[in-house]
Amino acid sequence: MSNPAPVAPSPAVARFMDAQIEMAHGAGGKATRRLIDGLIAPILIGPTAELGDAALVELGGAALALTADSFVVRPLQFPGGSIGELAVNGTVNDLAVAGAQPRTLLVTLVLEAGLATDVLERELRAIAAAARRAGVSIVGGDTKVVEHGRADGIYITTAGIGIKDARANLSAALVRPGDQVVLSGYIGDHGCAVMLARGGMALDAALMSDTRSVWPMIDRLLDAVGPSLRWMRDPTRGGVATALNELARDTNLAIAIREERIPVRDEVRGVCELLGLDPLHIANEGQFLAVVAPEGAHDALAAIHAAGGHAAAIIGEVREVPVRTVIAESAYGGARVIDMLVGDPLPRIC
Amino acid sequence: MSNPAPVAPSPAVARFMDAQIEMAHGAGGKATRRLIDGLIAPILIGPTAELGDAALVELGGAALALTADSFVVRPLQFPGGSIGELAVNGTVNDLAVAGAQPRTLLVTLVLEAGLATDVLERELRAIAAAARRAGVSIVGGDTKVVEHGRADGIYITTAGIGIKDARANLSAALVRPGDQVVLSGYIGDHGCAVMLARGGMALDAALMSDTRSVWPMIDRLLDAVGPSLRWMRDPTRGGVATALNELARDTNLAIAIREERIPVRDEVRGVCELLGLDPLHIANEGQFLAVVAPEGAHDALAAIHAAGGHAAAIIGEVREVPVRTVIAESAYGGARVIDMLVGDPLPRIC
Repeated sequence: MSNPAPVAPSPAVARFMDAQIEMAHGAGGKATRRLIDGLIAPILIGPTAELGDAALVELGGAALALTADSFVVRPLQFPGGSIGELAVNGTVNDLAVAGAQPRTLLVTLVLEAGLATDVLERELRAIAAAARRAGVSIVGGDTKVVEHGRADGIYITTAGIGIKDARANLSAALVRPGDQVVLSGYIGDHGCAVMLARGGMALDAALMSDTRSVWPMIDRLLDAVGPSLRWMRDPTRGGVATALNELARDTNLAIAIREERIPVRDEVRGVCELLGLDPLHIANEGQFLAVVAPEGAHDALAAIHAAGGHAAAIIGEVREVPVRTVIAESAYGGARVIDMLVGDPLPRIC
Repeated sequence: MSNPAPVAPSPAVARFMDAQIEMAHGAGGKATRRLIDGLIAPILIGPTAELGDAALVELGGAALALTADSFVVRPLQFPGGSIGELAVNGTVNDLAVAGAQPRTLLVTLVLEAGLATDVLERELRAIAAAARRAGVSIVGGDTKVVEHGRADGIYITTAGIGIKDARANLSAALVRPGDQVVLSGYIGDHGCAVMLARGGMALDAALMSDTRSVWPMIDRLLDAVGPSLRWMRDPTRGGVATALNELARDTNLAIAIREERIPVRDEVRGVCELLGLDPLHIANEGQFLAVVAPEGAHDALAAIHAAGGHAAAIIGEVREVPVRTVIAESAYGGARVIDMLVGDPLPRIC
């Protein structure tokens, strides 16, 4: 998640002052930002650490992208996927949006004593199948076991190593007013599918997680408009709203999106209305956001469409002001500020 | 932990038949082997996967070593170290014994809701300090939070990337009868220190974990006897007995060790006698085993001594028979077979 290249002068980061860790600190929104920027990153990486999806480093003469994620999704299985697939695709996508071709994975497991072997085997097969589909090889890992009641079935951590793609030159520092914001497809499918899988909701929507590798789409995108591509991000925990707020903060610019252009399925809209949530805050697992120079926007969209992302859309643009702010404009001329996710309406979504 | 290079023809691996996961499957001994060789490795890596401490892969023209480990040690702090230090040194050492210079770490955290921020901060500082001492940079990671009662304070996963050292050419396939087995220092300190830290034992031994990076010692060793060095391993979970049994199995040879040459502190001997354990089965965190061609053994020992490993010793040798067996001989002419660790006397030792 770290890219140590400084992007824009940030205001001083507030030290993390909460006395203890709460679920909201893991939700990917404001509380997570405060924990990461105010405590974890300054100690582990350094006072001026800027965090991207994957770190770009040179090792032994190779330009590599490195990333790691832990997966604690509950339940382990949900329509459209399971923790094993998520653990592969989530890490592969962090490499892809950093402009790196995913190549190699390490997989570690923390197993809860009492876990049924057939559940473990099912998730191992899900990991292997997702890795095969994503074209990455699993080269190692580790397995630990903790007492019953000290985990929740299986927690999976994947570390991914990719090779930086020469066609990609991505940085928030390259984003300019007028650049277009492209979204790869429907939002909120993953978060809503997991919520429905937990049951207890008088709702029977046919929703599936969108978990998949986005590298094939990004590969086409790099071919079509590589030099026009400025920035990418996969809007997982915290959703599109959080990813765009991070972009606004890192660029010191404004992001204006058009509400009616954002692809949202009726089922997702229904679940969100029922729960008082904004689809822009719901986690996605198989989507990405791209900022493209104006002259490349049309071709970028065509490339994603051609790669199977039929719902992809240009959802907005970068503006000068209001700085560090995301604005959603409606077709009728209204506008509202879109904040990062606050609190944790959806614990353990990935 | 994986090295896909086939080493010796292995008998067919039995499929893992246990119906559920038990603590013993995480102890690093026979049950762990059955789980890894009979279920996890065949599905994730392939049917003929041979597992080392780190995978050696070529990526983007660079010869890299990759490894990942999860850490679930209980309690979080113990004399001589804590989970944060362990998470750095354990992964760094897996790279070092693979003959790679540790360079870069990714760190992911699974935090239990309710964890005190000062405990988290203490472990973050332990991670940062250990990384500094080991000369590795932390470039990224991830943080997840689970409900209170779904973890045990903090679980840490570290992935490490190292650069293969040109002085090292290590493989069980290179081990020959007559090669000498060198041990870097006292065994059992880590496992006994963690056990004592759990309390409940009417024993007040002054024992400290041996957690440290072994790379400085291995660096000296490679300088001194690089071409004579055949194989290395860090004897963590399952102890020296398990590491040597894996060597015997992978080489199809015998390993004969001399009991009286194995450096064991009186305090470790005392704890083990009290609990009916063999120090050879106790986990170490800052030691390594090396197999050296006979002509290099003396210089290898001298190099480890010079690097601060004052208790290092030549503890035995490789023989033709009995194949796939570890034998411990006493000074009085007795001999016993040393098996891998069976069961889990020491859960969550790392």
